[in-house]
Amino acid sequence: MQDPQPWQVLQSKYLLDRRPYMHLREDQVRLPNGVVLDHYFVFEYPEWASILAVTEEGSIVLIRQYRHALGKVHFELPAGIVDPGESPLDSARRELMEETGYGSGEWREFVTLSANPATHTNRCHIFLATGVRRMNNPDYDHSEDMTVHVVPPGEVHTALCQGGIYQALHAAALWRWFAENGLPTNSP
Amino acid sequence: MQDPQPWQVLQSKYLLDRRPYMHLREDQVRLPNGVVLDHYFVFEYPEWASILAVTEEGSIVLIRQYRHALGKVHFELPAGIVDPGESPLDSARRELMEETGYGSGEWREFVTLSANPATHTNRCHIFLATGVRRMNNPDYDHSEDMTVHVVPPGEVHTALCQGGIYQALHAAALWRWFAENGLPTNSP
Repeated sequence: MQDPQPWQVLQSKYLLDRRPYMHLREDQVRLPNGVVLDHYFVFEYPEWASILAVTEEGSIVLIRQYRHALGKVHFELPAGIVDPGESPLDSARRELMEETGYGSGEWREFVTLSANPATHTNRCHIFLATGVRRMNNPDYDHSEDMTVHVVPPGEVHTALCQGGIYQALHAAALWRWFAENGLPTNSP
Repeated sequence: MQDPQPWQVLQSKYLLDRRPYMHLREDQVRLPNGVVLDHYFVFEYPEWASILAVTEEGSIVLIRQYRHALGKVHFELPAGIVDPGESPLDSARRELMEETGYGSGEWREFVTLSANPATHTNRCHIFLATGVRRMNNPDYDHSEDMTVHVVPPGEVHTALCQGGIYQALHAAALWRWFAENGLPTNSP
């Protein structure tokens, strides 16, 4: 069975330019079946980085943050954008330290995913950092308003099951962690 | 510790209106710390629905599709938008039948997540359908170009681990399924 083929871009223009966070591009595209879509929107983002950080005691470092589009406060993994010239790993180490004050430990690539590959050009690089410990006070950006929480795995699992973690990128990493480390007992 | 508080919307306007798929809204917002963000973009989408469908033989029904923003072909769960007046479950049953020809089985809510709660107003409702069987030929929309694959769990796990499934919403549901049903043996 032949794989679906790429679309042909007939025209392309930028509707919004908000460097470094997002460009909004509108493409006119022709599908392999000949259908032409006149208005296909593409969000050009820089790469993102995020961290599933497990402390020396075995708890997970989460933040609570208000997310305006959904209009809810929920738990997230620490995360941010990869700055120009920075590697995803360096970005992840920096963001974990800035947002939570946690660092050190052993780091490895864990999951690399897209928030939506139909619309987003970028990927989110999520690292697993084990054995992290608190080293500094958090140092937030002025547009950030968050609280830091060191949460035992059983409570993280409860939050996942009961709608306390909305962000799919972060939920995917956490469910992989539970798939590989076992589900806690006494959880829903 | 007090939870982060909602932002105050000072002004709001629509930049793009592409019913039913997306409105692009620009909000001027004031954060609880007094900082004003003049250009905060919000993507207003309808609710989405998706299906983790397991056949009577224990394989998972996936599609392969080209995703233009990321520029790659990958495996996805069957998915679509919830039409006006339709429940997420009805939408999921319809999409599974249209995209794959599979139906019947036992259905339940599985995970409800956001592609990105910072920018997306909607959620994706992912249902777990077990014991599905092929009942019809697929009936694609003209803008859809996809192939249907019935994939054993071991191969799904390999795809998850080796970057064959980019969509975080779908990866989250699949990793939850592996967390609750056990990882296959002889996988990476």
